[in-house]
Amino acid sequence: MSLLNYFRPKRTSAASHAKERLQIIVAQRRRGDERSDTLSAMEKDILEVIRKYYINIDSDAISVQLEQNEDDLSVLELNVTLPEDK
Amino acid sequence: MSLLNYFRPKRTSAASHAKERLQIIVAQRRRGDERSDTLSAMEKDILEVIRKYYINIDSDAISVQLEQNEDDLSVLELNVTLPEDK
Repeated sequence: MSLLNYFRPKRTSAASHAKERLQIIVAQRRRGDERSDTLSAMEKDILEVIRKYYINIDSDAISVQLEQNEDDLSVLELNVTLPEDK
Repeated sequence: MSLLNYFRPKRTSAASHAKERLQIIVAQRRRGDERSDTLSAMEKDILEVIRKYYINIDSDAISVQLEQNEDDLSVLELNVTLPEDK
């Protein structure tokens, strides 16, 4: 599977587009890191960066998904619904 | 333009798939942040996270692109060619 196939649109509902949101996708293709240890460890640091720049984000507003697929491809996806007030 | 349209495959050459690589895409949809100031500032922090987990990365191995499009959509894309030795 192509690394970039991951970045195809998955959701197209009007509601999901209307909200202010942040999406971070980290895709790693690397031999010998089958358990995606690196991305799993990076998750905490990336969340810290998000919270530095976007204050007042509820924990409920953050969803995180880590997938390990064939071909040494690991994908970490973070979706954040941003608060209305800046 | 849909936020997720950004994640469609752009490159499909065999050579680019063979290398060990890391790709980070940060997409933000937010009203009133037209100049993508937030993503521009986040770039430095994200690079620091990358360098924490992937040592010995040449500066030449990192490419960064920041795009600002219609609909308050900003996309920061970082592509890193990982060193062969872990």
